[in-house]
Amino acid sequence: MSMQENSSISKATVDRLPRYYRCLRLLADEGVEITSSEEIGRRTSVNPEQIRKDLAVFGQFGKKGVGYYVAELKENIGGILGLDQRFNIAIVGMGHLGVALANYQGITRLGFRIAALFDVNPVVIGTRLGERRVEDIAYLPEIVAERGVQIGVIAVPAAHAQEVADRLVGAGIRGIWNFAPVKLAVPENIPLISEDLSVGLSSLSYSLTHIAFEDEELSEKNNIE
Amino acid sequence: MSMQENSSISKATVDRLPRYYRCLRLLADEGVEITSSEEIGRRTSVNPEQIRKDLAVFGQFGKKGVGYYVAELKENIGGILGLDQRFNIAIVGMGHLGVALANYQGITRLGFRIAALFDVNPVVIGTRLGERRVEDIAYLPEIVAERGVQIGVIAVPAAHAQEVADRLVGAGIRGIWNFAPVKLAVPENIPLISEDLSVGLSSLSYSLTHIAFEDEELSEKNNIE
Repeated sequence: MSMQENSSISKATVDRLPRYYRCLRLLADEGVEITSSEEIGRRTSVNPEQIRKDLAVFGQFGKKGVGYYVAELKENIGGILGLDQRFNIAIVGMGHLGVALANYQGITRLGFRIAALFDVNPVVIGTRLGERRVEDIAYLPEIVAERGVQIGVIAVPAAHAQEVADRLVGAGIRGIWNFAPVKLAVPENIPLISEDLSVGLSSLSYSLTHIAFEDEELSEKNNIE
Repeated sequence: MSMQENSSISKATVDRLPRYYRCLRLLADEGVEITSSEEIGRRTSVNPEQIRKDLAVFGQFGKKGVGYYVAELKENIGGILGLDQRFNIAIVGMGHLGVALANYQGITRLGFRIAALFDVNPVVIGTRLGERRVEDIAYLPEIVAERGVQIGVIAVPAAHAQEVADRLVGAGIRGIWNFAPVKLAVPENIPLISEDLSVGLSSLSYSLTHIAFEDEELSEKNNIE
């Protein structure tokens, strides 16, 4: 794929690719070999027509009347997402969230490498977590440069998140994955992804509310009859 | 809104509502009073036309030529999502992830109540976390019934997740929020939301890959000149 094509992909399409990738990974895990835009649509809540349009941008991954080959499409989208580049990650903040992230297998399974763990607390600095020791954030610039760390993960309390973001940018990090529930200001050339658990929890709330309504309707009906 | 209208909402629309809600919450936090489908579209990566269509299903929240009133639209979507119902949550698994979730302010800010914390480890059972003590999962059915717990959060290792899901369903829980990286089987009438951090991390990977390409292109150009 040439860069000209890549540049013309809309942000909306790019934002859907990780969801397609996740869906294809699950399909592959389930042993499914061939899938359809309808099936991907059902699992990602994206319109099948939109899916066909999105995937056509990257070339022909499907065969008319057969469907999409799961393994091939997954590998191709993985490549487009840059998952074959094995980016190096540093996690800042070794509280419960930071430790949970350091232990999260999904990060390494996607091809990322956890290259450093940082904290400010002298009690935590020097403690061992798997193969790594927690290091003093004072050494952030040296360690980022030495180990070629590209992604900084912010797992500190909201009150300290902006300061950590500034230090990460100053240390030469290229992208930030933020878990602090706060809006961060970073330079325009630094991609920033903020996780927010409210989306999943709100979906669950909707389903529970909806089911409750149906139950009530049913009992009302029963009363009338 | 009548139930007939509510029932006719497509799953795809429902899946987009929490993202609209999150966007409106952030806009409100930023002090924005009036917004547009274009602005919501830019922030959620959903087509503005799709947004107008989605919101029209629930009634008229916008004013032609003015835009959407952020506070009003946020409150309305919050109501549709059932966020005014103050659902009770129980977290199972008090490892690092479970403790991080118990401390996560986003849960209470959305209107949910953490009603119980469970573990199997005798060392952890009885320890205090904020206002709550960690309780023995053996008492799950009694505590779920007594405290009216509706949502069970699975924060145990993948190998134990299905067993915990079965116990939650058996105890009468109505919905499950799963953080274990595994596909769970639950009865059809139990809504299940599984969190997967791979989506955010893949988006970041794409941005880094894309920027790297651009840099290379630039340096190539410079070499030619």
